Amino acid sequence: MFDLRSYIAQKNRLVNTALETYFQDPLHSRRIVEAMTYSLMAGGKRIRPILCLAAAEAVGGKEADALPAACALEMIHTYSLIHDDLPSIDDDTLRRGKPTCHIAFDEATAILAGDALLTMAFQVLSSVQFAENDYAVKWLNIIHLVSAAAGYRGMILGQMLDIASEGKQLSVKELEVMHALKTGALIEASLQSGAIIGCANDSQLELLKRYSQKIGLAFQVADDILNVEGNPGVMGKAIGTDRLREKSTYPSILGLEKSKEYAKDLIHNALLALDTFDKKADPLRAIATYIIERKR
Amino acid sequence: MFDLRSYIAQKNRLVNTALETYFQDPLHSRRIVEAMTYSLMAGGKRIRPILCLAAAEAVGGKEADALPAACALEMIHTYSLIHDDLPSIDDDTLRRGKPTCHIAFDEATAILAGDALLTMAFQVLSSVQFAENDYAVKWLNIIHLVSAAAGYRGMILGQMLDIASEGKQLSVKELEVMHALKTGALIEASLQSGAIIGCANDSQLELLKRYSQKIGLAFQVADDILNVEGNPGVMGKAIGTDRLREKSTYPSILGLEKSKEYAKDLIHNALLALDTFDKKADPLRAIATYIIERKR
Repeated sequence: MFDLRSYIAQKNRLVNTALETYFQDPLHSRRIVEAMTYSLMAGGKRIRPILCLAAAEAVGGKEADALPAACALEMIHTYSLIHDDLPSIDDDTLRRGKPTCHIAFDEATAILAGDALLTMAFQVLSSVQFAENDYAVKWLNIIHLVSAAAGYRGMILGQMLDIASEGKQLSVKELEVMHALKTGALIEASLQSGAIIGCANDSQLELLKRYSQKIGLAFQVADDILNVEGNPGVMGKAIGTDRLREKSTYPSILGLEKSKEYAKDLIHNALLALDTFDKKADPLRAIATYIIERKR
Repeated sequence: MFDLRSYIAQKNRLVNTALETYFQDPLHSRRIVEAMTYSLMAGGKRIRPILCLAAAEAVGGKEADALPAACALEMIHTYSLIHDDLPSIDDDTLRRGKPTCHIAFDEATAILAGDALLTMAFQVLSSVQFAENDYAVKWLNIIHLVSAAAGYRGMILGQMLDIASEGKQLSVKELEVMHALKTGALIEASLQSGAIIGCANDSQLELLKRYSQKIGLAFQVADDILNVEGNPGVMGKAIGTDRLREKSTYPSILGLEKSKEYAKDLIHNALLALDTFDKKADPLRAIATYIIERKR
């Protein structure tokens, strides 16, 4: 039986140590760096970096090789949270049990800290040590797919659609398009990055794409369910907020039970996509199951 | 005599056409794309892209090869303007004679349009056609230097210092550090990118670095002077705003005449750095002079 708990704890330490290393320089005391690290080290679940590392391993690659990509993806995720929390967007004051960046610092600093994390992600992905010929092509491909996933046809479009849909009742189809962009695109990019570093072949890349689309969606369905019946103390944030904001969610459209069935179904299909992978994909299998069983 | 006016007009058309090409897709009517292109095509001077193209040509490279970098640099510059104009930062309502992005659209859209332009810059710099071996190393190096220049130790730190200095009287030294970061870093990266694409040698890269540091500073001194005695109608923005905000500027510290002398001195030194370059560097020479003679 694969021990996911200790796997996640180990990868978490690995990613956190690596992230901290990037900020060990004389500028550490600068307000901008304080704001960046405040949000980056605020106890996130590190799902994207863990998926990136697990994908590299699933195809026979080394986690150390994928670590810079894993860190860059977490920087991009964190920047998106900082900006989404801003007063003119979601106006959230609490994130992971702590004041959001613009509350802990100020709005200008939060905007710039988000900008800086996004920019730094690309600095990490283009580190000089990657500039050996074969390697350079891989990293250039990763920069391209990550920037596409995070950009105006991916994550940012998803956020725009989310803003535009507030107060409206969406169909399941519209909800899926929005989530596929807002959270799915970067999750897919996380797995693809890891797989490319691990030298995946085309068939493996395709199967991992299918896996990531299913778990990306399941992750969102589970999030919506947690917003209805989660434990605020465990989650570090309030529940019932979607309903308060009249947001379209899976429970609000399908009902709670059908939503749970749907999430299970998605995970079943995610696992099917991994059928031809060997034991090295066990972490990805365990993560799929964890996604709908997690409490935060 | 080198005809700078028609050189700039020609490069402007080239860059504008290339920028528009990036947005010719079915998403064109999306609000996010409208906001991105609204600011990107608002009639900017295209100084960074022109410097990038001119640097490539100065070392014997082709402008067509440098064009993607030129476009990416303008996207980064435009994103920084959109975010700097936001209510919580500079709270500017007019830019290049038009309402700023958050006025023309809304604050959330402006934040996300800025994010999207920054992200797209890296997508452009990592285009798949660059992924041939030798080429890939060059573009990876460019991504690294551009992200470093735009990031929390470069442009963003400069913006943080600018915010922190409002209402304080800075020394000339402090003012120079702030400007070297806020505008200088990206100008330097523009020239370095073009030079790398043009296959510059180390000595050329070093001389172009010196050139860019001098003109970057001169550009800022000239901007401060224009804010005192420029023509608002020609500039498309109000003058006297620095004094109103009690901002430290070269005229406020050195006086107007000394500031003009200083700008001339900087340009003299910028031209000296180009001494060993041949006729192909004439555009760079003409641009240096233009920087302190421009009216907007």
